[in-house]
Amino acid sequence: MKHNFGAGPGILPHEVLKQAAEGVLNFNGTGLSILEISHRSAEFESVLNEAVSLVKELFNVPEGYSVLFMQGGASSQFALAPYNLLPDGGKAAYVETGVWANKALKEAKLFGQVEIVATAKESNYTYIPKDFTIPKDAAYIHITSNNTIYGTQMKEFFKSPIPVVCDMSSDIFSRKVDVSDFGLIYAGAQKNMGPAGVTLVIIKNDILGKVDRKIPSMFNYQVQIEGGSMYNTPPCFAIYVSMLTLRWLKAKGGVAGIEQENDAKAKALYTEIDRNPLFKGVCAVEDRSHMNVCFVVENPEHEKPFLKYCDEKGIVGIKGHRSVGGFRASIYNALPITSVHVLIDAMQEFQENNK
Amino acid sequence: MKHNFGAGPGILPHEVLKQAAEGVLNFNGTGLSILEISHRSAEFESVLNEAVSLVKELFNVPEGYSVLFMQGGASSQFALAPYNLLPDGGKAAYVETGVWANKALKEAKLFGQVEIVATAKESNYTYIPKDFTIPKDAAYIHITSNNTIYGTQMKEFFKSPIPVVCDMSSDIFSRKVDVSDFGLIYAGAQKNMGPAGVTLVIIKNDILGKVDRKIPSMFNYQVQIEGGSMYNTPPCFAIYVSMLTLRWLKAKGGVAGIEQENDAKAKALYTEIDRNPLFKGVCAVEDRSHMNVCFVVENPEHEKPFLKYCDEKGIVGIKGHRSVGGFRASIYNALPITSVHVLIDAMQEFQENNK
Repeated sequence: MKHNFGAGPGILPHEVLKQAAEGVLNFNGTGLSILEISHRSAEFESVLNEAVSLVKELFNVPEGYSVLFMQGGASSQFALAPYNLLPDGGKAAYVETGVWANKALKEAKLFGQVEIVATAKESNYTYIPKDFTIPKDAAYIHITSNNTIYGTQMKEFFKSPIPVVCDMSSDIFSRKVDVSDFGLIYAGAQKNMGPAGVTLVIIKNDILGKVDRKIPSMFNYQVQIEGGSMYNTPPCFAIYVSMLTLRWLKAKGGVAGIEQENDAKAKALYTEIDRNPLFKGVCAVEDRSHMNVCFVVENPEHEKPFLKYCDEKGIVGIKGHRSVGGFRASIYNALPITSVHVLIDAMQEFQENNK
Repeated sequence: MKHNFGAGPGILPHEVLKQAAEGVLNFNGTGLSILEISHRSAEFESVLNEAVSLVKELFNVPEGYSVLFMQGGASSQFALAPYNLLPDGGKAAYVETGVWANKALKEAKLFGQVEIVATAKESNYTYIPKDFTIPKDAAYIHITSNNTIYGTQMKEFFKSPIPVVCDMSSDIFSRKVDVSDFGLIYAGAQKNMGPAGVTLVIIKNDILGKVDRKIPSMFNYQVQIEGGSMYNTPPCFAIYVSMLTLRWLKAKGGVAGIEQENDAKAKALYTEIDRNPLFKGVCAVEDRSHMNVCFVVENPEHEKPFLKYCDEKGIVGIKGHRSVGGFRASIYNALPITSVHVLIDAMQEFQENNK
């Protein structure tokens, strides 16, 4: 039995994996694999429609928004947001909360001016900057809701006079969000929604049509909306597994239900980190992520032995990102609280054995 | 038992599907699913490396070329080819052999001038134009090796003074090809290589670096080469299944082996189409595709009954594309010749019953 704390591609629910494996062999009794049926078949269209409906229902997406399943990951969206939203000679505002935010703003610079309205770079991104002014003359303001590498998370969003563009890759569907606060939400699937290979985009229709540049069809949100995520052959299997995961989430009580579980998992783990003298957290307490729990050992000599200790207990994926070091326990939606307790027990036993 | 003649996503080998399903539950004995392991894990890196090696080996890719697994389908490559290769104010040459070629050249027009050096549009693309002059001042010439919708295929390629860019989506790995004839080959996986969601790109390194425009990282071939297809999280599962399919192909005797089988399948089916007075082919005989066999009924009243007849025999996916009508039997690498014989038998029985 493995306890998968990997940062992504991350853990998926066991029952989803079981259904996905069945679909690979015989999809919905068609006698064909989900990997070899036409994306124009009634069977696949029904999968895509259900996935879109589940996103709308689970995230309470208001009228006037479109839900897309695209390819290319959040890294492609780093470019597509300015491609579609930032006029030539215009300006976009960015809040720099980590390497991914930094990569996003670098792509925006290819299309226009970038104003970094706040940054936590000088602290190696251990906190979320909160005092910033939204420039009313910017085309949009870009934020990153959760910073996977550093373990920080924006606890509150804000009303804005300009569209808010949010990279929600690593905490989408983990907590209640008011979608109407945003002009554009995008998220690579591979943390809370499904396997790598599909990207969720939720976009307010009326923020489009304000740039004059020519946009290639595949990178044009309007074209993707008109094609219903089927302008070209979509990544059928990744959408299928995402749909199964969203179904699972709905059965768990939806986003409100999972948020309670996520809060409980995060609380248990941070409590142990704060209690156990061998470990300490690395981020500002008020900005601690409920998805990626980053911590270090007080004594550097404990790092390797603790990793080995975890490995023996089937705890995998907790090595911290190379730019931060230490440990990172990703506790995404699908990770059961029992796995968190296995990790906590390991920390306590490790303390006992290292007195 | 289904006989899957679908045009794509198309049939995959049964043993590949079995291994893929196993990998979804427990990948290589890791205790984790291929859907939830890190793309930076040794296990996944080994999958990617093997996939790249198999492409190089099976297609005899010369030194000086890079093999990439990207996202976004051939439709994204329609834009990426000119984005990376067509200088501002420059010109690209296109051979227009179908709707996909037409879509490709439309994207190129966003980046520079397009010269259509040959087109078969006036005949609804029922043949491959052969007499065209390659403009030496163009940045590249773009061709489509196989036209899925119309059932035509370029039987021979050519030496060119400018780079040849080829959309090989629907016949890659179906026959021997001299990769050194090409500057850039791209192919959506979902016909002969794997499931939808990954795109193979084979690029000659020295054709890059000749445009000045700023290219977003994800759409920049040079960035993708430097990242080894891992600039961002790749579509791990689609790459895994592609690798399994390439392994299967190697065990079948590689491209030379499958080409013989494909020739035999095509010959059997076209022979029946030409023999059976109820059916007729739609394309120029010398340009007939060995991947997508398009045909119609002589008597339009036979169309629906024949489809129903096929349906009862487990023959699926043979309805022709809406722009052509009639029938299209896609006989990709993974379709066994026994399925072709089931279709031929159906045609013969249908003839018997409709005398």
